[in-house]
Amino acid sequence: MRHDRHAAIGVFDSGVGGLTVLKALIERLPLESTIYLGDTARIPYGTKSPEMVTKYSLANAQALMEYDLKLLVVACNTASAVALPALEAYLPIPVLGVIGPGAQAAAAATRTGKVAVIGTPGTIASGAYQRALATERAELLVKSHACPLFVPLAEEGWTTGEVPRLVAERYLGQGLLDGGVDTLVLGCTHYPLLSDVIASVAGPEVRLVDSAQATAARVVEVLAAKGLQQTGPGPVERRYLVTDTPTRFLEVGARFLGHPLSGARQVDLVVSAS
Amino acid sequence: MRHDRHAAIGVFDSGVGGLTVLKALIERLPLESTIYLGDTARIPYGTKSPEMVTKYSLANAQALMEYDLKLLVVACNTASAVALPALEAYLPIPVLGVIGPGAQAAAAATRTGKVAVIGTPGTIASGAYQRALATERAELLVKSHACPLFVPLAEEGWTTGEVPRLVAERYLGQGLLDGGVDTLVLGCTHYPLLSDVIASVAGPEVRLVDSAQATAARVVEVLAAKGLQQTGPGPVERRYLVTDTPTRFLEVGARFLGHPLSGARQVDLVVSAS
Repeated sequence: MRHDRHAAIGVFDSGVGGLTVLKALIERLPLESTIYLGDTARIPYGTKSPEMVTKYSLANAQALMEYDLKLLVVACNTASAVALPALEAYLPIPVLGVIGPGAQAAAAATRTGKVAVIGTPGTIASGAYQRALATERAELLVKSHACPLFVPLAEEGWTTGEVPRLVAERYLGQGLLDGGVDTLVLGCTHYPLLSDVIASVAGPEVRLVDSAQATAARVVEVLAAKGLQQTGPGPVERRYLVTDTPTRFLEVGARFLGHPLSGARQVDLVVSAS
Repeated sequence: MRHDRHAAIGVFDSGVGGLTVLKALIERLPLESTIYLGDTARIPYGTKSPEMVTKYSLANAQALMEYDLKLLVVACNTASAVALPALEAYLPIPVLGVIGPGAQAAAAATRTGKVAVIGTPGTIASGAYQRALATERAELLVKSHACPLFVPLAEEGWTTGEVPRLVAERYLGQGLLDGGVDTLVLGCTHYPLLSDVIASVAGPEVRLVDSAQATAARVVEVLAAKGLQQTGPGPVERRYLVTDTPTRFLEVGARFLGHPLSGARQVDLVVSAS
């Protein structure tokens, strides 16, 4: 393993959601090669236990490390919430989750010091955003709410109209944004697809923080600090790996990435289920 | 293995959904011991490939066969759609899926000969209900639609009010029930929790067929035909196994079973992911 400028950035998620992070990465770093792994055989992580998510994350990292990587992005909030310490212990390259950068951006954005976080049940129950925000600015007031319906809405492509609006009203309307909250963290990689409806329900005084964008910005910083940016022109590779058959990943993934994927290869991971 | 009257009925599903089938079974056969396995580490099956679902189903059956079973119920539409032949080849006891009984009940119920089926993307794409209905009555006209939002609605407990009604209107309102359809098959074990809202959107002229009830009725027939019913009084055991940690299963499961579960034990299955 070279860990040099020419090596690729590895990205994994439980499925298609992390493609919003990959999309932000590609926009900022078009010269970097990328390898994305979607663990579609075990999606979703959000309802599974920390032990299980850690086990799956290590298997994903192991599969990606078969390639020449210089940095790994954990583009899954649930895995970032629970598996980062294990991944950092296991891997010889920098590992970035989506929660630290999201929390950092939110702490910098809020004027009132009141921040709300939405995510999957697993991410919210882990308290990882709450901890990360407290680390950034101890005096912040942080509220949170799990929004499990948002993932299937994004995957169905129901991102406009009455159904997503009512679901967003129900999730955001139970006091989550009361009392001067001015910053709302989209703590799930699926949620950027619903950002229009979420922003409209939250109102103009609430700023949305997209962890995908914050993470991509952080990757740029880390590569620069370590002198690992790809600078010259050269072949840019976009590889996609999945653990289940690729059909649905390619179909839904195009909606997340904003354009069709070049193809995806199914890989075999062996994980004990508990 | 004895395969006698005193052995238990095994039931598996990808998670909590199959508890609607278990509930129907217990109501009809209160003297029978039951062992339920929820493969919560790999839920949901509905978006995964036939190959993967078959592999998971075989691992579930293997774990259940550690116990003394006389019959296995595949209480998962997706697994019933794709894995029954493999399970029947592998197991020395009768295996019943939920699709055959559901199709049989629908074919018997329809007067117009026009039947609609709703289920997960995996179940609908498999065409299994369509085939099973054609086997029952070749002249039936069968329409179908995948309804992925219904599963998280049931698990969230959002079973009444505007959101499930609008979702049901969107799924059922695109011509699915036009042209004289008088029978609607709930082809997913989660859907009985939404049967009130589905029935109200479908209207009084459409009869709902609940595969869980139809399957329980079929289990009674098979046990009777093979002389395997538990007749005398005796200790009735209710065992619950899960592949992820039990917390969420116990919480959501109580809603599906209609009363709290006695507890669930986490078991370890080893499955290759592809």
